[in-house]
Amino acid sequence: MEYKDFIDLRAVQHLQQLAEQPYTLAGEGTLPPERISGYHTSACGFDFLFATQRVDDRVLAGLQDLADEAGLVEQFQAMKSGEVMNRIVGHDSENRQVLHTACRDVFSDKPLAPQATGRAEEQLLRLERFLADLDNGLVTNDQGEPFNTIIQVGIGGSDLGPRALYLALKRYCLPGRRAGFIANVDPDDAAAVLADLDLSHTLVNVVSKSGTTLETLTNEQLVRQALVAAGLNPARHMIAVTGAGSPMDDPEKYLASFYMYDDIGGRYSATSMVGGVTLGFVLGYDNFREILHGAHDMDVTAEKETVRDNLPLLMAMLGIWNHNFLGCATVAVLPYSQALLRFPAHLQQCDMESNGKRVNRYGQPVRWQTGPVVWGEPGTNGQHAFYQLLHQGTEIVPVEFIGFRRSQYQEDIKVRGTTSQQKLLANMLAQSLALARGREHENSNKRFPGNRPSSLLIADRLTPYTMGGLLALYENRIVFQGFCWNINSFDQEGVQLGKILADRILSQLAGEQSGDRQKPAHDAPEISLIHRAALDE
Amino acid sequence: MEYKDFIDLRAVQHLQQLAEQPYTLAGEGTLPPERISGYHTSACGFDFLFATQRVDDRVLAGLQDLADEAGLVEQFQAMKSGEVMNRIVGHDSENRQVLHTACRDVFSDKPLAPQATGRAEEQLLRLERFLADLDNGLVTNDQGEPFNTIIQVGIGGSDLGPRALYLALKRYCLPGRRAGFIANVDPDDAAAVLADLDLSHTLVNVVSKSGTTLETLTNEQLVRQALVAAGLNPARHMIAVTGAGSPMDDPEKYLASFYMYDDIGGRYSATSMVGGVTLGFVLGYDNFREILHGAHDMDVTAEKETVRDNLPLLMAMLGIWNHNFLGCATVAVLPYSQALLRFPAHLQQCDMESNGKRVNRYGQPVRWQTGPVVWGEPGTNGQHAFYQLLHQGTEIVPVEFIGFRRSQYQEDIKVRGTTSQQKLLANMLAQSLALARGREHENSNKRFPGNRPSSLLIADRLTPYTMGGLLALYENRIVFQGFCWNINSFDQEGVQLGKILADRILSQLAGEQSGDRQKPAHDAPEISLIHRAALDE
Repeated sequence: MEYKDFIDLRAVQHLQQLAEQPYTLAGEGTLPPERISGYHTSACGFDFLFATQRVDDRVLAGLQDLADEAGLVEQFQAMKSGEVMNRIVGHDSENRQVLHTACRDVFSDKPLAPQATGRAEEQLLRLERFLADLDNGLVTNDQGEPFNTIIQVGIGGSDLGPRALYLALKRYCLPGRRAGFIANVDPDDAAAVLADLDLSHTLVNVVSKSGTTLETLTNEQLVRQALVAAGLNPARHMIAVTGAGSPMDDPEKYLASFYMYDDIGGRYSATSMVGGVTLGFVLGYDNFREILHGAHDMDVTAEKETVRDNLPLLMAMLGIWNHNFLGCATVAVLPYSQALLRFPAHLQQCDMESNGKRVNRYGQPVRWQTGPVVWGEPGTNGQHAFYQLLHQGTEIVPVEFIGFRRSQYQEDIKVRGTTSQQKLLANMLAQSLALARGREHENSNKRFPGNRPSSLLIADRLTPYTMGGLLALYENRIVFQGFCWNINSFDQEGVQLGKILADRILSQLAGEQSGDRQKPAHDAPEISLIHRAALDE
Repeated sequence: MEYKDFIDLRAVQHLQQLAEQPYTLAGEGTLPPERISGYHTSACGFDFLFATQRVDDRVLAGLQDLADEAGLVEQFQAMKSGEVMNRIVGHDSENRQVLHTACRDVFSDKPLAPQATGRAEEQLLRLERFLADLDNGLVTNDQGEPFNTIIQVGIGGSDLGPRALYLALKRYCLPGRRAGFIANVDPDDAAAVLADLDLSHTLVNVVSKSGTTLETLTNEQLVRQALVAAGLNPARHMIAVTGAGSPMDDPEKYLASFYMYDDIGGRYSATSMVGGVTLGFVLGYDNFREILHGAHDMDVTAEKETVRDNLPLLMAMLGIWNHNFLGCATVAVLPYSQALLRFPAHLQQCDMESNGKRVNRYGQPVRWQTGPVVWGEPGTNGQHAFYQLLHQGTEIVPVEFIGFRRSQYQEDIKVRGTTSQQKLLANMLAQSLALARGREHENSNKRFPGNRPSSLLIADRLTPYTMGGLLALYENRIVFQGFCWNINSFDQEGVQLGKILADRILSQLAGEQSGDRQKPAHDAPEISLIHRAALDE
């Protein structure tokens, strides 16, 4: 496959012309009924309304041309079928397939990457058995009592996705089951989690593909120490999720072990065993399958040819319109759902680590903007926080609203004639309109310029199935954008330099402490200087 | 006082020239010892290292000139002394004093706003007595048992600051005491918090200055309902923090009431009773005083004339350099402290609601950029998430690192010769260096352009005193920037339009449900159209 540079695509040049006069949302009559009903598409239980984006039919056609010319759907199918998409042509790179979709393709009669899907099925079967053993009392603690808590020890992709999904779906937990998470090398992270815990009924799930992640290994040791101090045998409490052959792949040290594979990047791993073990434990195996089912259905949607039918592709193209053509540096993801409180943090990782890149897939510096800064908090909370800037600030922030027609707990109250759930949704719709239309006012401080783009994504209820669909929607949006920018969305070379410098500081510290005071590494004398200025009192 | 427009200041024009060739951090020899030790200042137990900002002595002199020409310290003193700073000259506006600093000036022999400080002292005394009554068993639940839990019901400023401080200082909680928070109108927020609770030992602290905040009133009713359903008397469990004379100012309905005042904006209210009641309950009165003490000392620092001595002013000016002169749209606040996990969300509110403005203090549209997008998550977690974009993305994100030499729990472990706390700090220093220096590499994908600005803020340990100082440091940084941009940092007219539109949708819904199907409001027909497209299945 020949990859074309974003800036050289004919469609990009056409869109640049269109961007000189983007659709105006502000004022009266800019949102007629036919626009609202026409700029609306559906997939996998989600409705997507985008009349409040600064696009018209010409721009939508241009975005479709862009998707076609860059071969985005074709690339997605190639990825799903096991082509080596994680590479930089002509340079030393990871050279891997990208097969997180295979974890969900277990619902397909003819999976596109049968080997990877077979592998995923094998792990699912092992998980199902292990969870059944817990339920049947075949696996218990030393006293023969059941476990009720699981602590996931992992960082980055081994933390954010599973944590976001756990919080999103807490409502569906099996009675008495709960999860905790330890990620940070900050010793206070583990200390605070352990302080609240009854270790004797706790499983500890250590997740690291390489089995060498500094934070995770350190926290694993901290937790092992705590188990021993509590008179417990770590081998009866600890589970490993790791790559075959990694230093953690040692069944003697763990009650159970599950595999993760090189062709699934950490940030795309929530639907692999990285999410499966903890989510399966708290939600039950069937609910975890439901997450996969929702994700699978969205993966199928992502193979459709047109932006009208392909929701992830449409969202990707609208994001590119706002970022590359209208010049917005950031995008806010604002769920009107308290349960999704950490979903923006997961997306922040998935998006910024994937698309925060500076070379194309041939290793040449890009001549266009790649990924934006992604951030967000739940509404309505945000309305009382940062929305002032969204409405009247000088930075324009495109917004992706997410909402649900029904609550999870269905415990609601009518105040002034409407339920809380109605208030929640009414606020979301109102914000989208307010951003778009703005308002004239004789007092300039009460004037709203409007013309600020947003979209509304709405489903019936946040369930395991919906959550899976939402997760895959964003995963697929992100890879479509990466394909379009002609970057490798699947490596993360940008995190290496910090690690190397940290290791130098630490080996110097370790040397000093052992009496072997080293000279500063001659290629980075700043290290010891900053270190002293910062740490010596 | 005559307010000058940012763009018309001589110092701004000079800085624009200097910004054509900002200091280069990338490469060898750009961080010599004298730069590292020279670009270092201290205040209230904090060290601040800024050698890794793109400034030189000429820029620093220019930033000092800017601060002087705009009269920033003078304006800060005026604010602290009770001048009406919350106003738009010549327009209808809130016309209020801005006196959150008066809450901390209780430690001063000669407070600058004696009346407001006297008022704060009165509330502190009432809080001290109430907390003592709880400790002495004079105030108990119906069974004569002590309360162990407090739930704060509030949103925005009545939620984010107190919540961030509670999480930051959980280590210092009195034995058995804990806090929870309900903010979102999403009924699942309250349902999830209430599901985990023993209401009979719970105080419910309802916080709303106006006593009319929709989310808070609705959640108060939900909680009242839950108390009644549990056979408890709400008047023995509920506390109010509200403005004198508000609809919530009704001692019959509450076990205790505390006042907040119009001259303290929600986002600056953490050191008033808005934070005091919940933080005092969980941390004890003396620890809450320590927070105030740290904040007071930082407020005193903020009155110093030079950026070298005035840490909040220096941070404000460096932020303006990065935002207005180097063109960075966002700023990331990255604490290397898991306890500070929600502090960036608090700052996001405080900063973006204060400085996300489009008119100056005379109501004229600004001709320069005002506040940036503020975002962040704790390190080292972020290193495994979005740091890829920080190092190799096409958006340049200035970073403010925050770290501590010692952990809170002091429960640590040595792995490979160093403690977790050492690893945590080494990583923070390494990231700052990596962003600045970058790295050449023959493989372009492993090349780091560097030249990305950051600063390091380091204290000995995160304690109530340090937390108070950190809070006031940022509050003061934010108001200095607002003064410099000549905007009113103390109103929030930008949140009004969304409220109005939401109310219209809701009154329409309430009307429909009561059978009185109204016609769509003729000035906003989109409301009902979007509403139908979004909600009717």
